[in-house]
Amino acid sequence: MTRKSSITASTVNAMVNAGQLRGWHDLLAAEPHVAGTHGDERVIEKLRATFESFGLETDVHEFWALLPRPSAAVLQIVSPEQRDLILKERVLDEDLYTQHPALDPGWNAFSGSGDVTGEVVYANYGRKEDFETLATLGVEVRGRIVIARYGGNYRGYKAKFAQKAGAAGLIIYTDPAESGYTRGLLYPEGGYANDTCIERGSLQTLPYIGDALTPGVEATRDAPRLKIDEVGLCAIPVQPIGYGAALEIMKRMTGRAVADHAETRGWQAGLPVPYRLTGGEALRVRLKVEQDREIRRSANVVGVLRGSEEPRRMVVIGCHHDAWGFGASDPLAGTIALVEAARALSRAARELGPPRRSIAFCAWGAEEYGIIGSSEWVEGNRDLLATDAAAYFNLDMASMGVDFGSSSGPSIRRAIASAAAEVPQARDPERTVLDAWMGRGGDATDPSLPAFGDLGGGSDHVAFWCHVGVASAGLSAGGSPGTSYHSIYDNLAWYRKVVGEDYESAMMITRMAAGSALRLATEELLPIEPWVCVSEFRRHLRDVSGRGAAAGLWNAPEAATEPAAAQDGLAPVADPLAELDRDAASTQRELLETVAAWRDRVAAGKVSADELNDLNERLLATDRAWVLPEGLPERPWFKNLLAAPDRDSGYASWMLPMLRRVVEDKDAAGLEAAVKAYTGVFRSLREIVEIPGA
Amino acid sequence: MTRKSSITASTVNAMVNAGQLRGWHDLLAAEPHVAGTHGDERVIEKLRATFESFGLETDVHEFWALLPRPSAAVLQIVSPEQRDLILKERVLDEDLYTQHPALDPGWNAFSGSGDVTGEVVYANYGRKEDFETLATLGVEVRGRIVIARYGGNYRGYKAKFAQKAGAAGLIIYTDPAESGYTRGLLYPEGGYANDTCIERGSLQTLPYIGDALTPGVEATRDAPRLKIDEVGLCAIPVQPIGYGAALEIMKRMTGRAVADHAETRGWQAGLPVPYRLTGGEALRVRLKVEQDREIRRSANVVGVLRGSEEPRRMVVIGCHHDAWGFGASDPLAGTIALVEAARALSRAARELGPPRRSIAFCAWGAEEYGIIGSSEWVEGNRDLLATDAAAYFNLDMASMGVDFGSSSGPSIRRAIASAAAEVPQARDPERTVLDAWMGRGGDATDPSLPAFGDLGGGSDHVAFWCHVGVASAGLSAGGSPGTSYHSIYDNLAWYRKVVGEDYESAMMITRMAAGSALRLATEELLPIEPWVCVSEFRRHLRDVSGRGAAAGLWNAPEAATEPAAAQDGLAPVADPLAELDRDAASTQRELLETVAAWRDRVAAGKVSADELNDLNERLLATDRAWVLPEGLPERPWFKNLLAAPDRDSGYASWMLPMLRRVVEDKDAAGLEAAVKAYTGVFRSLREIVEIPGA
Repeated sequence: MTRKSSITASTVNAMVNAGQLRGWHDLLAAEPHVAGTHGDERVIEKLRATFESFGLETDVHEFWALLPRPSAAVLQIVSPEQRDLILKERVLDEDLYTQHPALDPGWNAFSGSGDVTGEVVYANYGRKEDFETLATLGVEVRGRIVIARYGGNYRGYKAKFAQKAGAAGLIIYTDPAESGYTRGLLYPEGGYANDTCIERGSLQTLPYIGDALTPGVEATRDAPRLKIDEVGLCAIPVQPIGYGAALEIMKRMTGRAVADHAETRGWQAGLPVPYRLTGGEALRVRLKVEQDREIRRSANVVGVLRGSEEPRRMVVIGCHHDAWGFGASDPLAGTIALVEAARALSRAARELGPPRRSIAFCAWGAEEYGIIGSSEWVEGNRDLLATDAAAYFNLDMASMGVDFGSSSGPSIRRAIASAAAEVPQARDPERTVLDAWMGRGGDATDPSLPAFGDLGGGSDHVAFWCHVGVASAGLSAGGSPGTSYHSIYDNLAWYRKVVGEDYESAMMITRMAAGSALRLATEELLPIEPWVCVSEFRRHLRDVSGRGAAAGLWNAPEAATEPAAAQDGLAPVADPLAELDRDAASTQRELLETVAAWRDRVAAGKVSADELNDLNERLLATDRAWVLPEGLPERPWFKNLLAAPDRDSGYASWMLPMLRRVVEDKDAAGLEAAVKAYTGVFRSLREIVEIPGA
Repeated sequence: MTRKSSITASTVNAMVNAGQLRGWHDLLAAEPHVAGTHGDERVIEKLRATFESFGLETDVHEFWALLPRPSAAVLQIVSPEQRDLILKERVLDEDLYTQHPALDPGWNAFSGSGDVTGEVVYANYGRKEDFETLATLGVEVRGRIVIARYGGNYRGYKAKFAQKAGAAGLIIYTDPAESGYTRGLLYPEGGYANDTCIERGSLQTLPYIGDALTPGVEATRDAPRLKIDEVGLCAIPVQPIGYGAALEIMKRMTGRAVADHAETRGWQAGLPVPYRLTGGEALRVRLKVEQDREIRRSANVVGVLRGSEEPRRMVVIGCHHDAWGFGASDPLAGTIALVEAARALSRAARELGPPRRSIAFCAWGAEEYGIIGSSEWVEGNRDLLATDAAAYFNLDMASMGVDFGSSSGPSIRRAIASAAAEVPQARDPERTVLDAWMGRGGDATDPSLPAFGDLGGGSDHVAFWCHVGVASAGLSAGGSPGTSYHSIYDNLAWYRKVVGEDYESAMMITRMAAGSALRLATEELLPIEPWVCVSEFRRHLRDVSGRGAAAGLWNAPEAATEPAAAQDGLAPVADPLAELDRDAASTQRELLETVAAWRDRVAAGKVSADELNDLNERLLATDRAWVLPEGLPERPWFKNLLAAPDRDSGYASWMLPMLRRVVEDKDAAGLEAAVKAYTGVFRSLREIVEIPGA
């Protein structure tokens, strides 16, 4: 039998080092490194060398994905007077990074190419409901150039809905109410967007994530590929700008004011002009965007710390490495914690013995274009992950302040909270992270847990969580006054001015990642709590029930008359969901009792190695029980019945997505299939924990 | 016996005429008419002639009051560069009124005179709590020039608190978040403040209203007067400016950002710069203000429509006539309704017989300086009003839109609501005013009534309501998109563009004023409901109880255990107030039952003329029962125990002011006297309605 590891959280905590974190930051943020560029290649090589230096089993996992590059962009006011608008950030004497020649002007990857001129329409956030409001008010969008502000949804949906409404082009700007003088001091004096600051970013919105041309399969060099024209990428030109340029357009608009309609009163934001729905005939704007659509190579860098007793089973910690510029915050505020966790844990393993299970450290490529690297790796390792991945921890942009938080799959929440009880709070070491976190509010259902967010879309956890069903969590800390998101100001000068020089946030995140992973990698019985998924199911079922009643799909549930429902203190659900709720309630009880009994037996040393292996296999299977093999209707790549990205806005999550879709589409006919799918989950869960003869 | 009047609401409604209202507007808004100026004299003469032409008993009631005039003002940025800031509004080609030579630059009456230079401190709204926050954050105000935004309190308190904090001077500006691009289109395109628009206004904050030199007595030519230096008028220079000028100062400030402190995060408003607490050493501003402090003559114009059966008893309708410029909105949007109500009611009286009781139409002078004309008239007629005034209806700025509302003393609310049931809604004549009003929400205590506001300070009702105890109400309608408040843009061009050309709002207000007054002037038994005052007392007692608990004066009330308290569905009050609440509850029941019985007997014709007179006298006495002859502690001019202006902010009201003061000052020692005073009110109320032998 292999030597038992004696790694503890406190030994790892002591090994984490601010100077090292600063060093990784210097190493990785030295130059712009957009996916598919030479800077990207150099970062990949640095990561490979670093992981190898830790003694990890290191693999550079290459992929070939559709990674557009910009070649030209023009934005002009054509009339009433001609004026070119600036499409790049101000170069600053106070921040020499802003002078780097490899920095791109502002652009949105996957924009269509084109040269259009037209009148202007303001569409607020460019959400589905915003375009519906414009239609209600009789505002013509067709043939016009839409200007929309960042916020409210994923930018790809702004483009999707603008194109659907017939817009000729789209301009997206950062409103000062979101980041600018309305929020605080401006960069370089403070941390918020100055008038030239531009948020870059991808527009990819497809019914899957990862490489646009290889859904469901790994994007190897020779993988079968869709034709680009079949994929349904954005066709209209889209250009992001700063609020200085936006003001030049907005102040020349002469149409109806947003304040004149109750529906659009909230569309007024932070620019010093009355916002208007239309620009009027006199104002004409020209937008020209050119981008290639080439397949380019990038890579994930994966380093494995091999476990001693269950080496196939693994905990994965990941963060992407690609950026829109230097990426000191996005992603490197997470990547440096990933690297430092790898260093500390591999050193601890050398000194104290490796953990029971393997820990994989994954620096993902091309996240920014569409969560590509992680998705391709997951697609290439789907079967292994389905059977043997215990959890995935994502660290994208993780160290941005001292206020720790997590959005997480339900089954590993207690493991994360337990880790937080052993990590000192950044800049307040007398307290633990858990103390500070609980101080900001407890979980709605279980007051012994801190408040976790619902894990949806937006970063490298999506393939793990939504495609394969691996329990996943984002770990991050925020609260610093400012943002340089996707701008050329996202560099070390900004980070050290705004987040700080002390790397306290990054130390806390490193310890949280290492500590959470250690719990999953070292405890004999996996600390997975399948009943919490069911408890969360029931909470979200109440939300869906209410939404369905509001949408007229069913009658609002009456006050509880059944003793069972009244007993557990939960609000009733609508009649067509009531049986499902009872099924969930009994499943929840059975899971709780059974797994508690397992835990007692393991603690008492009454379980053989084979039995333990069987119980762990069952625990992993409980997370996968939520996976519907055929996937969700209309977007089968997403298979987790507990959570999916919000279909209509991107960043947020749809919980119980198959039921939620029924409600959103008012598709009463789809209800039966949805209920059946969830009933199947509960049957599976009960079967998984049922041990013949036990 | 005199001929019974057959005036009905519908006959009066039919007599109200939009063309007439427009004509009164043309007549009274023809030139600037600041109190004490030649324009003021001409308006007084026009009103006298108009009232006489209606056949009213007309009196020009002169008074001599302290009415300062401005002589000079300079506001300069001295360093880092020198720059004069503009202290008057932009003259507009679209609005020829703006060119009138008699218009004053921006000024605040009762400013100190002086010439000061210093650094700048931003104090948000300049409220008591804002200066406390600055002190907490260690921001030095002493010797500096404070810049504060309008809103949040009466401007006089901004000056009072700035002076108390040691400021050298005060600049008050209109923030675009209050009126400007944040709210809608700017004048002259729309109705909101452009960058030069300046809110003028008085700074008088004394423990009484009316002429500063003659508290408690009428300001006749020869009245005994206080010395100016004894009065405690504002000593520092104060200057109002537009947001364009404010931006010139704010954008040069270099100190700490308001966003950097949790306490001041809400201080950021609508200017396109990060707001800061301090200007820094480099920014120096000079403020020079010169004003005289002269006693000037002005006058009220009072026209009485004499009642037939109870001619001494009167209902008063009032609105001031003085303005800071043309005053098309403030006050004339109310004054024209006053004049038209006088015309319609006097014509109706000629044709159908005069009403039972007298109606006095009062156009007040010098309201803008400190509610002077109405206060001097009330002081001169105090005894008559105390015995014989049935109600006061105030129409200041009343016709500003179609959404009718009222802040009102409790006892006449049902009379106003009944009148609203007989008046067609402006621009929606299929509905009544009551329908539309109820549609915006009902009263918190009595769902059969629409929602009324609590009547506090701010206009000509104050002397009637707070000094003498006459049941009073403000009647007004708003909802038009914009404001030109106290600026040179408050003229007919602005009013007709923003509120409209149709005078629908003014017709509605005229009808509401005439209809409400008619109910009080014609019903045999006065429609005064004394139990509603007690019901409102109990509601406000709960508020005071909660505030006292929050301030630590007493323990928070426990959940009701007493059946009595639980029975009426009201929350319990803190122990030291519980006996008072029980007292109120029994008084409320007794009033309700007794007056209902009176009403039944009168309706059944079982009451003699003498008995009726006695009952009406008793009803009038119930309103006066709330008057404490010695007045409130520290400000004895205010005598109504039900309501007073907010001592620390001006416009708002303190309900149950003697109890509220105990809470605000945490003066537990004052509680006994306060409870005793209210106990006395309830004893009086019960005595008033107790008829020996009945």
